[in-house]
Amino acid sequence: MKRRKLIGHGAIGALSAAAATACSPAARGPDTSRDSLPRIRWNMATSWPASLDTIYGGAQTIARRVAEMTDNRFEIRPYPAGELVPGLQVLDAVQGGTVQCGHTASYYYIGKNPALAFATSVPFGLNAQQQNAWLYHGGGLEAMQRLYSDFNIINFPAGNTGVQMGGWFKRQINTVQDLNGLKMRIPGLGGQVMEKLGVNVQVLPGGEIFLALERGAIDAAEWVGPYDDLKLGLNKAAQFYYYPGWWEPGPTLDVLVNQAQWNQLPKDYQEIFKTAAYEANLNMLAQYEVLNREALATLKAGGTQLLPYSQEIIDAAKKVTFDLYADSASKDATFRGIYEQWNKFREEMYQWTAITELSYGNFVIPKP
Amino acid sequence: MKRRKLIGHGAIGALSAAAATACSPAARGPDTSRDSLPRIRWNMATSWPASLDTIYGGAQTIARRVAEMTDNRFEIRPYPAGELVPGLQVLDAVQGGTVQCGHTASYYYIGKNPALAFATSVPFGLNAQQQNAWLYHGGGLEAMQRLYSDFNIINFPAGNTGVQMGGWFKRQINTVQDLNGLKMRIPGLGGQVMEKLGVNVQVLPGGEIFLALERGAIDAAEWVGPYDDLKLGLNKAAQFYYYPGWWEPGPTLDVLVNQAQWNQLPKDYQEIFKTAAYEANLNMLAQYEVLNREALATLKAGGTQLLPYSQEIIDAAKKVTFDLYADSASKDATFRGIYEQWNKFREEMYQWTAITELSYGNFVIPKP
Repeated sequence: MKRRKLIGHGAIGALSAAAATACSPAARGPDTSRDSLPRIRWNMATSWPASLDTIYGGAQTIARRVAEMTDNRFEIRPYPAGELVPGLQVLDAVQGGTVQCGHTASYYYIGKNPALAFATSVPFGLNAQQQNAWLYHGGGLEAMQRLYSDFNIINFPAGNTGVQMGGWFKRQINTVQDLNGLKMRIPGLGGQVMEKLGVNVQVLPGGEIFLALERGAIDAAEWVGPYDDLKLGLNKAAQFYYYPGWWEPGPTLDVLVNQAQWNQLPKDYQEIFKTAAYEANLNMLAQYEVLNREALATLKAGGTQLLPYSQEIIDAAKKVTFDLYADSASKDATFRGIYEQWNKFREEMYQWTAITELSYGNFVIPKP
Repeated sequence: MKRRKLIGHGAIGALSAAAATACSPAARGPDTSRDSLPRIRWNMATSWPASLDTIYGGAQTIARRVAEMTDNRFEIRPYPAGELVPGLQVLDAVQGGTVQCGHTASYYYIGKNPALAFATSVPFGLNAQQQNAWLYHGGGLEAMQRLYSDFNIINFPAGNTGVQMGGWFKRQINTVQDLNGLKMRIPGLGGQVMEKLGVNVQVLPGGEIFLALERGAIDAAEWVGPYDDLKLGLNKAAQFYYYPGWWEPGPTLDVLVNQAQWNQLPKDYQEIFKTAAYEANLNMLAQYEVLNREALATLKAGGTQLLPYSQEIIDAAKKVTFDLYADSASKDATFRGIYEQWNKFREEMYQWTAITELSYGNFVIPKP
């Protein structure tokens, strides 16, 4: 029995008995329409072109699951970057209420608050598993939600790429000296560190990387990892593919929700939304692992040379990185508070990882 | 406006207008009661004592979230092992319909089908991140769901402990010779491998381990990791704590649902249940990482000596393990099909992990 139909067609008088039955819980069968669930339609701005299908897929996972869990009564429509708002203005759009929610990376907004970097990933920081531990059970998410409350936003982790790659180079780099004057596409904190190591840092959108690298306008470029890099054709523009991406060891993507919109959601819809974000977080990493593994095989077969960063470069980059953190901490009390808690967590977590994941990996996984 | 109250008190005639309004979607505010959602009550048997609060917490996460997402109309009540059925009979109880669902480890049931081990964890297998990749995007979950369909069950991953520890020893073990005749509590496939290495394998329930180890009835015992082992007081009974637990590198816990019960669930409740299982999977590992990190510090401060397994023992154990797999594959076509697909996935995934998680970890994490 479809209640909506009855309401649509019946006169009030004729409705009474039917409505009383239809509204009684006992009358519900499994295929009852969900008329007591409110209809809500939200837009979700994202920072991603649809071609970054794994990351954009995080937004799609949330939208699809929320719809499925509410019999399509809570509908969220994700939009690629630029369709509703520019990709790097998702926070602003959610804060201002232009959209109800957005899927983005918090570290795009370190200009607004440098500590937002910890919500995503920072150089020489946590891998995905450690990052989830910090966020969900190490005080991280509470700390990040406090930062976002200044923007009238509530955030939830909603994706992770895993450790990214260290970028494509047209020639081998072995020493810090080799980095001097090298023109490299690398945005964010990784770029700040590279700059201090002598790199001539370039910031280009994804769509322009291939041509710049292929024509020699730049000498090196980082994007994401094998799956996404292969789609841009970066392997046709440079031969040497370095690892690991020490500036992005486990980037979390976030879903941001306007606080007023969030407060208006019924409690069950809030729980549905939050739980869908958990799935997006777990699912994206699982998917990336599989896709990157496949793309890596393709790259190897195509002649790409995989090379580790040298210990010299790693050591120099690590020193510059922690000097940067100390500098930010000295200038900004909020950053300092979060950094100190995070850094203690990091050091202690490394001791646990050392004897479990890392020890096990070193015993069973052949050296590359 | 509470519709149920109106229905409870009003005469049918007086109800008409109010009911028509109450049933119209437009009239719903955020706190509308969810009368169109069916009321369902399920029991969930588990294989865990409540004292294993992190693992048992996986069952509780699902129950709590499902309730929250349905305004408490789909209620699932988890029970510790033994309250509804014995801990190792969860599969049977779900298959027979004694309970609608259960939270357990699939490798408890390798006597029914040896390939069920892959749903949980096998010696020298995948870590948690790789296991999730295999399950969700590498064909693993489909393969496991095909196995479970023989038992009229559908399963979903619902928790992970991460790499476990390698057990407590009253004396140091350096060579395979040192294992000869050693009495060790270690169940499952790990026990089968240890037995072939000369260990006198014992199987004791968790509650009996401490006394047996303390009194010298056994020389060694493995349980889970620092957090759970500390609760049993194993550090008071043995001094040497070995790592890593190469026989359980990333055990997945499963939630099993009776297929007929599953089929009767409305589609939105199915999605709600599945999504809650994702959260349980991700959340348990994040929680274990944090709790184990804290317990590890306590153990170290209390004088526990952490030692890695020797390369000699690892190599011997690895050889015995893969001989076991080859033997099972030669005897059982189902096992062979799943093993071969899994093993190819494992080898390829290791190549990706080698240059990302592992390479990064080795660069940044101090040696223990």
